[in-house]
This record gives sequence, C-alpha cells and structure tokens, in this order.
Amino acid sequence: MHRVKVRVVEDALDANNTIARANRDDFDRAGVTVVNLMSAPGAGKTALLERVLHELADVRAGVLEGDVQGSYDADRLASLHVPVTQINTDPGFGGECHLDANMVRSAVPALPLDEIDLLVIENVGNLVCPAEFHVGEDARVMVSSVTEGEDKPLKYPLMFRTCELVLVNKIDLLPHLDFDLDRFLHNLDAVHPDVPHMLVSARTGEGVEAWRDWLLALPARREVAV
Amino acid sequence: MHRVKVRVVEDALDANNTIARANRDDFDRAGVTVVNLMSAPGAGKTALLERVLHELADVRAGVLEGDVQGSYDADRLASLHVPVTQINTDPGFGGECHLDANMVRSAVPALPLDEIDLLVIENVGNLVCPAEFHVGEDARVMVSSVTEGEDKPLKYPLMFRTCELVLVNKIDLLPHLDFDLDRFLHNLDAVHPDVPHMLVSARTGEGVEAWRDWLLALPARREVAV
Repeated sequence: MHRVKVRVVEDALDANNTIARANRDDFDRAGVTVVNLMSAPGAGKTALLERVLHELADVRAGVLEGDVQGSYDADRLASLHVPVTQINTDPGFGGECHLDANMVRSAVPALPLDEIDLLVIENVGNLVCPAEFHVGEDARVMVSSVTEGEDKPLKYPLMFRTCELVLVNKIDLLPHLDFDLDRFLHNLDAVHPDVPHMLVSARTGEGVEAWRDWLLALPARREVAV
Repeated sequence: MHRVKVRVVEDALDANNTIARANRDDFDRAGVTVVNLMSAPGAGKTALLERVLHELADVRAGVLEGDVQGSYDADRLASLHVPVTQINTDPGFGGECHLDANMVRSAVPALPLDEIDLLVIENVGNLVCPAEFHVGEDARVMVSSVTEGEDKPLKYPLMFRTCELVLVNKIDLLPHLDFDLDRFLHNLDAVHPDVPHMLVSARTGEGVEAWRDWLLALPARREVAV
C-alpha cells in the first residue's frame, strides 16, 4: 500500500518536472529571470517584495501571486505599477497549499513576458509542500522570520535545503525576542551548508539593497551556470 | 480532468472522516478529551502548550506531537513529565504537511489512553491542509501570532473557520509591531463570526490561565453538545 502511494507521488512529481521544464523554456525564450519566493505565512514575503521592487525601479519586473484565495497581496503590489498576475489555488477543500508547475503554466498566457526581465513568483505561505514542486524558476529565495524561532531549518529541512538564498527577516524585532541568531545560523548550516543568507527588515529597509544586488546579479550567475 | 480530481479528493476525505470517527470512538470509550492544536510554523504552539501544561498539573494530560521529521518539540515537552508520543509524517518528498486521521490511528496503540483525561494533538505547522483533516478531536484550537499580520483570516479562511477557539499569541510584542488588533479581529469575525478568541503571550504567561479554564470546561461543554 505504502509503495503504491510512493510511486503515485513519484509519478506526480515527474509530471510536475516535465511541465516545469516547459515553463522554464518559455521564460528562457523571453529572456525572463524567474525567482520562486517562499516562506511560512506572515514571514513578510509581500512586504519585502514591495521594498525591493522600489529599489528595482530600473528593472522591468513582474509578479505572479499565489494564494489559496483572494488577491490581497496582488492588490497591495499593484500600487507599485508593476504587472501583477494572480493565481488562486483552486477553491474546494481549502485549496491547494502550494503552487505547482501546472498552475504556473496556466498563468503563462496572462504574463507579459515580452515586457519584463524579472518575474517573482510569490508562493503560498507554507514551509512544506512548496519546496517539493519546481515551477520553472531560475532560483528559489526563502524568507524566514526571526519571530518563528531558531528551530525551523531542522523542522522543515527540505525548504531550507532547496533554496539558493535565505532572507532572515524582521531583524528590527531582535531586541524584543529571545531569538538566538547564532543558533539559527548553526541550524541552517546543518541542513544547507554554505547557503547564502542576508539579514533584512522589510519594516526598516535594512538589508534590502543587498537583496536587490543579488537579484540584479542573478541573470549573469545563471549564464555562468549554463 | 478537474472533476476526476475533485472526486478523488472527496473520496479521500470521506475515508479520512470514517477513520476519524473510529479514533473518536476510542477516545470517548477511554473518557479522553482531545484537542487538535494548529497554527502556522513558529506561531508558538509548543511554547503555549508548555505554559498551559504547567497550569494543568492536576489534570492527567498527554501530547501527540506531529512533525514532518525530528522530535524537537516532543523533547521539549518531555521535561514536563507528561506522556508525549511522536508522529513523523513519513519521510519521502518532504513528508506530509498535515496530520490525518490515519496517522493518528496508527499512534493510538502507543497512547496511554487509560492514564490520561486530556490529549493535545499538536499538528504540523501549516495554515492550509491541517484544517481539511479531522483526526477524531473534540475541539480545534488555532494559534495566530500577531507577528503574522492582520490579513491571515482572509487568506487562510478554512483554518480560522473550522476552529472552536483562536489564541492570539505574542501580544507582548504588540508595542513593537504595526499590527492593528481591531483589524485582525474584524477580519476574524468576517470569516468566523463570534468564534471565541483569547489574547495570550507564551513568553509572559498572559492569558494562559484563561486558556486553561477553557480546556478544563471542555468535557462539560462536550456533554452538553452531545
């Protein structure tokens, strides 16, 4: 019984990867660099995105918003005058808890790929399933808030292991928390040695320029990798 | 294609409910009141549980810990000298992002049901899928941290709609946040009118006695409901 389940899941992930490659081909053809932005609910993805998009005024950027339902974050970002496309993960039983390649595929015709150079896909807030599904991205960035505690890399290792950058957010709150940053970084290193991290605050803007520079350098890094 | 998927999901939830009823029958026979404790990662479920178990020293309580992997929270709670049983949601593709009735069923033989009167099931940190799966609980309690923002009830409505109590945690941080408590409560009321809520802080202990009293009154409320 268990083996059957594993095989079904493997087949589903194979199918997902095939569609993710098709998305990636479309993005590559259009010359668009794609970032998959992930975190737990309320870690500050949208707030950081607002901040960094301000700093990327010279870059033609777009956003693909993933939510179970509603378009609250898309509405927030629309005021920045960047093209925002919304995916709702299908109502019914609470909706899916993650984006997959097929959901992103369904949004591709609505994306203005010829008018943008950078696409940020804001995933559903969840530290488990989003990490299992490639959607055709060039890089994965995850946001971990210091309010969530030091143990998160150990408890949700796949998420921390499959990203290219960890943004440690809400550091303006550090004086008011018992959060041990060294212990968090030790735990992060245990599950993903040498992954780059940046200390940021969406509230004060601290560290956002460093993230902007990382995003600006992404196309060049991608060419070296290819 | 889509209709087939919905039918498969409905069948799976039907099967889950059948097993949840079997769990519930076992808990009822043993006279154990069961609470399903849910939240986003890092909202403070374990810390609140530590606090309230201290206040429930006269109650024979046990804990069933759900995690993707590891036993970090179970190890924390074991020092309180309550029986703690660990479920890991099966490694493989990151593990499941929630507990379901069958996982709890598999743990029933390991639970000391004759020695406890209250069982708290700490679910996997996730605001989506745990809400879809009954596990045989008498009541659902969810923890929402003020650090997560006011919009969470609107973005994860099923979770907020299917619980009997909302613990608004980390209120000691309110002076340092832009969190608008009235707006949060307004959003909560929009998705689940009149659901009880309590303002709590696992750090300072504020509000924990009120939660303790709510838990102590649960068996009596359950009998009235039956």
